Amino acid sequence: MSTFASDNYSGAHPEIIAALAAANSGHQVSYGGDVYTLSLQDVFRAHFGDAARTYPVLNGTGANVVALQAASDRWAAVICADTAHIQVDECGAPEKVAGLKLLPVPATHGKLTIDDIRREAWGFDDEHRARPQVVSITQSTELGTVYTPAEVRDIAAFAHANDMLVHLDGARLANAAAHLDEPFRAFTTDAGVDILSFGGTKNGMILGEAVVVLNPKLNRGMDYLRKSSMQLIAKMRYVSAQFLALLQGDLWLRNAGHANAMAARLAEEIRDLPGCEITHPVQANAVFVRLPAAALASLHEQFAFYDWSTGEARLMTAFDTTTDDVDRLAKAVRAALTR
Amino acid sequence: MSTFASDNYSGAHPEIIAALAAANSGHQVSYGGDVYTLSLQDVFRAHFGDAARTYPVLNGTGANVVALQAASDRWAAVICADTAHIQVDECGAPEKVAGLKLLPVPATHGKLTIDDIRREAWGFDDEHRARPQVVSITQSTELGTVYTPAEVRDIAAFAHANDMLVHLDGARLANAAAHLDEPFRAFTTDAGVDILSFGGTKNGMILGEAVVVLNPKLNRGMDYLRKSSMQLIAKMRYVSAQFLALLQGDLWLRNAGHANAMAARLAEEIRDLPGCEITHPVQANAVFVRLPAAALASLHEQFAFYDWSTGEARLMTAFDTTTDDVDRLAKAVRAALTR
Amino acid sequence: MSTFASDNYSGAHPEIIAALAAANSGHQVSYGGDVYTLSLQDVFRAHFGDAARTYPVLNGTGANVVALQAASDRWAAVICADTAHIQVDECGAPEKVAGLKLLPVPATHGKLTIDDIRREAWGFDDEHRARPQVVSITQSTELGTVYTPAEVRDIAAFAHANDMLVHLDGARLANAAAHLDEPFRAFTTDAGVDILSFGGTKNGMILGEAVVVLNPKLNRGMDYLRKSSMQLIAKMRYVSAQFLALLQGDLWLRNAGHANAMAARLAEEIRDLPGCEITHPVQANAVFVRLPAAALASLHEQFAFYDWSTGEARLMTAFDTTTDDVDRLAKAVRAALTR
Amino acid sequence: MSTFASDNYSGAHPEIIAALAAANSGHQVSYGGDVYTLSLQDVFRAHFGDAARTYPVLNGTGANVVALQAASDRWAAVICADTAHIQVDECGAPEKVAGLKLLPVPATHGKLTIDDIRREAWGFDDEHRARPQVVSITQSTELGTVYTPAEVRDIAAFAHANDMLVHLDGARLANAAAHLDEPFRAFTTDAGVDILSFGGTKNGMILGEAVVVLNPKLNRGMDYLRKSSMQLIAKMRYVSAQFLALLQGDLWLRNAGHANAMAARLAEEIRDLPGCEITHPVQANAVFVRLPAAALASLHEQFAFYDWSTGEARLMTAFDTTTDDVDRLAKAVRAALTR
Repeated sequence: MSTFASDNYSGAHPEIIAALAAANSGHQVSYGGDVYTLSLQDVFRAHFGDAARTYPVLNGTGANVVALQAASDRWAAVICADTAHIQVDECGAPEKVAGLKLLPVPATHGKLTIDDIRREAWGFDDEHRARPQVVSITQSTELGTVYTPAEVRDIAAFAHANDMLVHLDGARLANAAAHLDEPFRAFTTDAGVDILSFGGTKNGMILGEAVVVLNPKLNRGMDYLRKSSMQLIAKMRYVSAQFLALLQGDLWLRNAGHANAMAARLAEEIRDLPGCEITHPVQANAVFVRLPAAALASLHEQFAFYDWSTGEARLMTAFDTTTDDVDRLAKAVRAALTR
Repeated sequence: MSTFASDNYSGAHPEIIAALAAANSGHQVSYGGDVYTLSLQDVFRAHFGDAARTYPVLNGTGANVVALQAASDRWAAVICADTAHIQVDECGAPEKVAGLKLLPVPATHGKLTIDDIRREAWGFDDEHRARPQVVSITQSTELGTVYTPAEVRDIAAFAHANDMLVHLDGARLANAAAHLDEPFRAFTTDAGVDILSFGGTKNGMILGEAVVVLNPKLNRGMDYLRKSSMQLIAKMRYVSAQFLALLQGDLWLRNAGHANAMAARLAEEIRDLPGCEITHPVQANAVFVRLPAAALASLHEQFAFYDWSTGEARLMTAFDTTTDDVDRLAKAVRAALTR
Repeated sequence: MSTFASDNYSGAHPEIIAALAAANSGHQVSYGGDVYTLSLQDVFRAHFGDAARTYPVLNGTGANVVALQAASDRWAAVICADTAHIQVDECGAPEKVAGLKLLPVPATHGKLTIDDIRREAWGFDDEHRARPQVVSITQSTELGTVYTPAEVRDIAAFAHANDMLVHLDGARLANAAAHLDEPFRAFTTDAGVDILSFGGTKNGMILGEAVVVLNPKLNRGMDYLRKSSMQLIAKMRYVSAQFLALLQGDLWLRNAGHANAMAARLAEEIRDLPGCEITHPVQANAVFVRLPAAALASLHEQFAFYDWSTGEARLMTAFDTTTDDVDRLAKAVRAALTR
Repeated sequence: MSTFASDNYSGAHPEIIAALAAANSGHQVSYGGDVYTLSLQDVFRAHFGDAARTYPVLNGTGANVVALQAASDRWAAVICADTAHIQVDECGAPEKVAGLKLLPVPATHGKLTIDDIRREAWGFDDEHRARPQVVSITQSTELGTVYTPAEVRDIAAFAHANDMLVHLDGARLANAAAHLDEPFRAFTTDAGVDILSFGGTKNGMILGEAVVVLNPKLNRGMDYLRKSSMQLIAKMRYVSAQFLALLQGDLWLRNAGHANAMAARLAEEIRDLPGCEITHPVQANAVFVRLPAAALASLHEQFAFYDWSTGEARLMTAFDTTTDDVDRLAKAVRAALTR
């Protein structure tokens, strides 16, 4: 039975499980020397351009922390939205594992503007201040919104003009691509992103993310950073085979597009209900909604979902959310609001 | 086609893949709140005693570094064999992620004795010396040998008498149990081990290890340590379901026992060949052998295996090594030596 | 010739230099085993109570980072004002050396209120969030203001009720004591502070700070933390002898009281000038003032002082600021504003 | 009264105290912007060549850890003698603060040979092994011996040929220069050393060391590394003024030469006594001597000195050791041996 708690409450897409089973034959060189991981390079290059080099890793925090290290020196600070996963959901791993200082700034709907970034983009030659070297943005954001290619391009131009690099946390990159109806590279490689975390888990894999290096200078030491950050596994074929299943065809797009559509459907059904306030644009697969306390309590009895620290309910859809799931939830919201 | 390169060149046991597929239905609470992970506690308790608490993680380095942090303060040193995985194969992750100082000591056949440990077990109240707080042993060792329960007990007694704790790297714990013909607890819980890394990968899983806390004081902060060390995944059910398949029945023992038997068979077949010197007792699933250079070169043309930095060839067997594989290799060794 | 740039542009008080010279005779046990450091314990106990234990260190960042480690686990977060030295002036040392996550919150006049702290004092049992374990306040603050004993007491009570400890950055603790006309312990030990950084440099020493542990549980491992954080020197007598000169008599109070008086005099002289806005209460030895751009430019030609990132000029006084210095500056401000 | 415990039991040379007093006038730009620190550059350049850039720091551990970071990436290992200060006396600071892995190797008389280095100089492209990037040698060594310029040159050539850099821990660099009767640059800059820690404390300062960058590429980020490693103080003039007093004239050489001469005198007086074995060449200011237990006990009643973990007594001389001190000790040794 479905929930609206998180796109990681879902299992994996059946094609992913089939890919795992198919990969399970014979010996393969370990630690990424297997044929699946080797062919992964071409698949990601098809999506991100010829310069892309891909390093599969294990989870989103791992992808982010490895990528940020590749893009920074030992004395770096990272500018991010105050809602960024690296700031609020990684238990201080960027600080602990990489020694980085995060400089979070408030950001409307989870999206950084250049003015937001400017609040911390200063003091570049002051040894008393960890040097801002990276701007990290999330696409789609933790609040279900999506940067346009132009917005990413402007951020990258600003960052580069200030001798900073751009990291993109793409735990839900597929949802952004589906919303924008653009290929990945339109808002990553072509927009000036230097390095990104590509999310497999929320897109229907059992586990697995990838660091994709777009700025070739950042490949230096990546193998070491991945290993010393404990993001390398012996039987890497089982991560890579999933990615192949996801990205060789259009499974990534079917999954993300469906999740987005379910969120849009939900938003449509409840948007105009009196007492219901949708607080962020619904562009990817999340609906943030403010509801009266009694309605919220009633819904919690019927569905699993999370209340945000800001007071909204976060309703997430996933590749396996059905229209029935959505319609039942919308009906329950309606009932809760009219009681 | 099989190799003798590593027990992680193997795929997963078919029952593991079946367990993954079976776990793939419906929504589950993420980050370890799923029913598989919850029932894992009982399964591990059955093996390790009622006080055991289990934290599934992603890889061996991750298990070790999380466990070592749980057992130490910020100013700790860890005494280990100079052949220990934490010393030679983890790219400095214990130093980098945990800030630990390792104090490696030479150890015959990869097994620490109390005299070995004594070489670094001193200076406990000298702030100039990182305080030795943990003795870390590997079972079965990186050289294919196995500590007896009495040996572990003596080490633990010595460690505890010196205010140190005992970590056991059990990446191949099942191989040790199979060799000793003892339950896990005989040489862990009952022998005084405080915390251990339990290996799933080399025992037939696609990935997955577990930190098992036997000394309840070390549970404090473990959830945080696992997360901040980037060893937590969202869909933890897929690690836990594999462990259930491995440990609820005797799959772990069948896999490890078979691998050990294949190593023993190989050793038996080549031990007495002139020019062939087996350099360590063959107790688990590794055969270390010194061969003439020409013979070695000839074998490398036919089989995948690794040369150790000490000059031996390391021939590893796995759950899927067949008697045919072994016999072909033994025959090739014989041929190479008589040419 | 004097400046208003910082209380660390000053040299040392002559009595400090005399103490250094007097300490320069014969051999002393190194690394703090000298007679000066040993007698330091009693001197600090006289100021901070019998439970106080003192660890001299080298600089303010060192004192803070050592103290924060003593008060926290490897998975901790520290709540502080967004103007705190640990947040804005330590180049990420708390993150880099201690792996801590800082949770800065906006604070009026640099002083945290309980409501400010509450903004980050939540999620105590969520492994995705570094656990808030310490509230760090600065006394006097970076903006020249001072917490009352009651304010510190309330913060400590709130922190302790939430299983957090209180660190006090006392780089200018003497200035606070002078302003409050209270002994140190009234707003530290007696107010519930667990650990503090005591500042010698800005109070007239050539260098030297001290971590003072008030909550005896935090002494555990302190010697190791100081050494591994590179805050221990061989000839510690030269730090300790300065502290003795400062704290055995009333040099600390004379120095701080004079600096405060100079700031008060400056504020008095310029406060009512049209175009001059003093932006924070002048309680310690800083005057923050907003001035028209032309006036500011004119003053920069005549005096050394820093512009704050918020646009104010920061005018610092020190133990060696003279009334003449102040009057010349005040006169220049007046002239600049009337031009 | 003098001891033979350590060259840091001594106080400071009177000229150093005089320099401190002389520097104590007026305001100076803080954090190294003072006139003393600025002129320090030229003074060090005169000793180490035009490319040298100098960063004063606070203690030997700090100098080493800052220098090692400048010379390495986040995934680096450092090859050193197993007697190196960074390995045995820094409480794990290189691991904790810099995340470095040390690879200690046994070294005769504390001096690394190329064969010693080779033991760990391998596996340069294996992500499972922290990459050896630095060879760290100590001059004079912790055992009182001195590398010849040719020996340093050979080590540097070997290191560079293997894409490694050379760090030299010069806590007692002056003693080495005095022994060799060579200018500093003969066995540092001209021998291929990339970066070094220059010791002031043991050469007669109250505190203070310096990182001297000889390979200009390593200047990148040095200001940040020093600050974030907590080795920067506000009133840096007081460190720099000492260095000026030491290095503008020949105070460094007088101090070191005298200390060496006292060690040589002591060695000469006791070398041939039956029962007395001097275990290392006496080249700098240490005499390591093996004595019968009874003799050792008797000496401990009369003089302060340390027993080494290897069983020898370490007898250190300093700039303030007198011939009387030496003769009294020698006499006591003689008496203890003949009793």
